[in-house]
Amino acid sequence: MEAQDPDILLVEDNPEDLALALFALKKVPMPCIVQTVRDGEEALNFVFGRGPFSNVSPPPRPRLILLDLKLPKLTGLEVLRELKKNGSTRGIPVVIMTSSSQEKDLLECYEEGANSYIQKPIDFSEFQSIINGIGSYWLTINKAAPAARAF
Amino acid sequence: MEAQDPDILLVEDNPEDLALALFALKKVPMPCIVQTVRDGEEALNFVFGRGPFSNVSPPPRPRLILLDLKLPKLTGLEVLRELKKNGSTRGIPVVIMTSSSQEKDLLECYEEGANSYIQKPIDFSEFQSIINGIGSYWLTINKAAPAARAF
Repeated sequence: MEAQDPDILLVEDNPEDLALALFALKKVPMPCIVQTVRDGEEALNFVFGRGPFSNVSPPPRPRLILLDLKLPKLTGLEVLRELKKNGSTRGIPVVIMTSSSQEKDLLECYEEGANSYIQKPIDFSEFQSIINGIGSYWLTINKAAPAARAF
Repeated sequence: MEAQDPDILLVEDNPEDLALALFALKKVPMPCIVQTVRDGEEALNFVFGRGPFSNVSPPPRPRLILLDLKLPKLTGLEVLRELKKNGSTRGIPVVIMTSSSQEKDLLECYEEGANSYIQKPIDFSEFQSIINGIGSYWLTINKAAPAARAF
């Protein structure tokens, strides 16, 4: 089975945060297909075409992964590490979107190859403006890498 | 001697491209101190406080590095590699800004840890809009990492 590539893979377990993010993403001023997964393991299964996603070949390739840090099963940092150590997924931009303001998280994420780190604001209009900025930058300005292949 | 941290370190050798980028950066709607360097070696000297910059301690820390690929002395890819293999500079976002549309460049840059890759358009109003997007995203939305330290 072939599947359409989503623009954004949203990895978020908290139902309220997920609803809020989806609501904001619906309002970005560009076409934006969003796939959601609810924990770290499901995120890797989706991207690598494993487990419940093993019938999809090749695995869908999002143009951006929006990754929460506090996730069940595998943490966001563990997901990030897997994505960045694998040549086939290293070129997918990963933006960490978290409520954590800890400097340690910030440093560790960049250490593991996060493309960008965003601290979620509490105010919704500020959050909407950040989501618009994310959409605009990563879906229209940035050029994501295609799946790696030999030259 | 202490120096003010620039918002953006612009690494560009071509005089016309440099003038165009500076012109566009002056028009971004946020305060933006830009430091320019003209080749790969000068970029590393600036960031690591070496050579002509060795009297500045600690070395200035830009919030973003805008890096051309085709540079004298050291290529953009070599500069990127140095920045990303060193713990003290790994957390500085590096955006590759190039006229190259080669898939090989794109893949290599992400392979070496580029945070983002932008292909420069020929049209100036499109270029200005991209520069605005870069300023808005990396200087107001993204959270860059401070210099690494032990926890």
